[in-house]
Amino acid sequence: MGTRVTFVSTSAGWEHPRTSFYTDHYELTMLQASLHSGAAHRKSVFEAFARRLPDGRRYGIVAGTGRLLEGIANFRFGDAELEFLKRTNVVNAQTLEYLASYRFSGDIWGYPEGEAYFPNSPILIVEATFAEACMLETYLLSVLNHDSAIASAASRMVTAAGGRPCIEMGSRRTHEEAATASARAAIIAGFDSTSNLEAGIRYGIKTVGTAAHSFTLLHDTERDAFEAQIASLGDHTSLLVDTYDVEAAVRTAVDLAGPRLGAVRLDSGDLVAQAQWVRRLLDDLGNENTKIVVTSDLDEYAIAALQSAPVDSYGVGTSLVTGSGAPTASMVYKLVSRTDDDGTFVSVAKAAKNKASVGGRKYALRKLNERGIATAEVVGVGRRPEDDGNDRPLLQQFMKNGELLPGWTGHEGVLRARRRHADSMAELPPVVNRLQRGEAAIPTLYEEN
Amino acid sequence: MGTRVTFVSTSAGWEHPRTSFYTDHYELTMLQASLHSGAAHRKSVFEAFARRLPDGRRYGIVAGTGRLLEGIANFRFGDAELEFLKRTNVVNAQTLEYLASYRFSGDIWGYPEGEAYFPNSPILIVEATFAEACMLETYLLSVLNHDSAIASAASRMVTAAGGRPCIEMGSRRTHEEAATASARAAIIAGFDSTSNLEAGIRYGIKTVGTAAHSFTLLHDTERDAFEAQIASLGDHTSLLVDTYDVEAAVRTAVDLAGPRLGAVRLDSGDLVAQAQWVRRLLDDLGNENTKIVVTSDLDEYAIAALQSAPVDSYGVGTSLVTGSGAPTASMVYKLVSRTDDDGTFVSVAKAAKNKASVGGRKYALRKLNERGIATAEVVGVGRRPEDDGNDRPLLQQFMKNGELLPGWTGHEGVLRARRRHADSMAELPPVVNRLQRGEAAIPTLYEEN
Repeated sequence: MGTRVTFVSTSAGWEHPRTSFYTDHYELTMLQASLHSGAAHRKSVFEAFARRLPDGRRYGIVAGTGRLLEGIANFRFGDAELEFLKRTNVVNAQTLEYLASYRFSGDIWGYPEGEAYFPNSPILIVEATFAEACMLETYLLSVLNHDSAIASAASRMVTAAGGRPCIEMGSRRTHEEAATASARAAIIAGFDSTSNLEAGIRYGIKTVGTAAHSFTLLHDTERDAFEAQIASLGDHTSLLVDTYDVEAAVRTAVDLAGPRLGAVRLDSGDLVAQAQWVRRLLDDLGNENTKIVVTSDLDEYAIAALQSAPVDSYGVGTSLVTGSGAPTASMVYKLVSRTDDDGTFVSVAKAAKNKASVGGRKYALRKLNERGIATAEVVGVGRRPEDDGNDRPLLQQFMKNGELLPGWTGHEGVLRARRRHADSMAELPPVVNRLQRGEAAIPTLYEEN
Repeated sequence: MGTRVTFVSTSAGWEHPRTSFYTDHYELTMLQASLHSGAAHRKSVFEAFARRLPDGRRYGIVAGTGRLLEGIANFRFGDAELEFLKRTNVVNAQTLEYLASYRFSGDIWGYPEGEAYFPNSPILIVEATFAEACMLETYLLSVLNHDSAIASAASRMVTAAGGRPCIEMGSRRTHEEAATASARAAIIAGFDSTSNLEAGIRYGIKTVGTAAHSFTLLHDTERDAFEAQIASLGDHTSLLVDTYDVEAAVRTAVDLAGPRLGAVRLDSGDLVAQAQWVRRLLDDLGNENTKIVVTSDLDEYAIAALQSAPVDSYGVGTSLVTGSGAPTASMVYKLVSRTDDDGTFVSVAKAAKNKASVGGRKYALRKLNERGIATAEVVGVGRRPEDDGNDRPLLQQFMKNGELLPGWTGHEGVLRARRRHADSMAELPPVVNRLQRGEAAIPTLYEEN
């Protein structure tokens, strides 16, 4: 995929929205009660992890971290927010005073965006006072759960496509801001481009598109529509050929654009059979270089089924933005360690049935065999796991004393995450290429103190 | 639900984000090509509708319209957007010039937010030039597809809960902005409150919450945590009792808070059995007025199963924000009519297999029997259907010549949509109360010219 252009340069000027109210009410009442008891100032370690992968999946892909870090750096309570909290009696005066000067000043570590994860991988670790860390719970989980669900699905589609470009075009099937985040996550997981203009301007991702059925219907004849499109967008454009009769449309397209016609797009019907006879027809008409794009309700399984057909690229919509059956990554954010009155760290964990967690700060590395293939996810509890030389440490530091460390956010963060995804996938065992349901590709092993 | 407080007053100050880039690239290339052919200025009718309901559902609920209308009123291309489109060669100079002065100046009609819909109900109708209307496709579908999916799931949960309050608490399981829209959609469909603070400040929805497991784990003992919470939030607070041992926690809670303890929250385990013995224990301890809230991975089926248990309210998360198996409403936006060179309207429709649509401007009414119960969705093609006196017209006008008509947006719009939902549900046949999979509750009948 080296020679394809996936990025354009970004525009400045996108202002981060208010992030401090992407918060559940209970985070502020906990803050109030812990300020009252004094425990708010205990040093705490919170961790985000998923107890399991979506049913049958072999791996997940971490995404959203760059977006999240930008948002945490902007997490502030202004006059409008404080006034609302006061007027609706969410919290008391002492808490409002604390919130007025809130600024995250802790450390954040985690798996870099684009990295593969497995059950109980410590994906994000927040070290701060309880007061500072507890308030990030909802926002942090929203971003990671959404973006990771999309990237995890996207990664499987890219694998199924086996090098043929995948185009993200699902914006219309999800919330408008989730759409932009989905385009970003898809690019990280190896998609080639997106239809979403906001993802283009905000993250510098290449956008693509030509025309819908409405454009054909707008004109008196299909020929009029194709003529207008070719005259305006050039003969290398992509023409949508299934509004009326596909064969007639392909013939009209070639008649008008000649051998330089860029592509025809098929958006309905039996795509495998159709791609085959459309390819033959194009070749017979002398259009060997005209490509075939397919775009009708594709998911990783449909893509796999189309691999034997003469298709040049896949446009993926609904299935991508809904996580292909797993629209959320089910990550949780748990307090795993905090100081006592003497300042000593104490591991903590709840005992609730089916939701028990492992207390203690986690460390992680990916165990690799002599050929550089991953064999296990090793999670150290309270200490770094043993590294036998081949192994790859997984945790990176993203924030130090509340300051963002460079390279993880913005356009640069997306580029870096895309490389991380490609490198991590190359290191996983071949079972990750199987779409069938099964166990996690590698086991998660705990090394405890 | 009359006496419960679901709304608080809103705060001013939330600025609508840029909406013009919630757009697919191809809308702008279509604009360019149609400006070239001149067809951009043809008057057009686009319609948003769903060809089918999610598998097995009896009805859907329209949501998002209020949010969408505010966004359309703000749909503008500023310097940053135009500079991006120019630099990345998305469109040519003529198109940039058109976009610089873009302002939607058409009419918009549709089903009011909160209304029930069925297959092929004409949910939103946009009448404008092709140029003006085609550009709204992606944004319009994003909002309607997301919010309607959430409202449709929420409505079933509210029905299953049979009058017991449902609390929306799924923010952490979906994109942070989708979370706010989900809270809004849930309230429209009859939820009582939300945990989401942004929904509180933006739409005046009541927010609720007390504490998570981390608050208990933060303190040296569960007793310390409960004591701190009661001291700070009052004895009428809700205590989370499943961090360690539920029975011990309930006894500690009652010991500390006394008979005025507001509620206990159960978040794990066998909720039916647990609610029953916790109720008996509370009663035995003299806490007949202490309520039981349950919150563990509930969906409409789990709620129905809990109706026999002594539960006072349901907190719903993941299942709500992911549409309970149907995360998108699969609405499409199709050109159904446009003028020809003489200015005469011509019905248009594509013939693509499995995706054929019905051309012509639609009108709609809900046919009611003598008892006021809905018996059919009647869609008139090109003309208003016959009204036999009992029937209820469904289309309302939202925008006229680009101006928003009052009452559909903001806090007022949410209130009105919530009433519309309640009224529409009361009018549907009893089959809508069944959670089992089946056909649409009423048939959609076309009346053609």
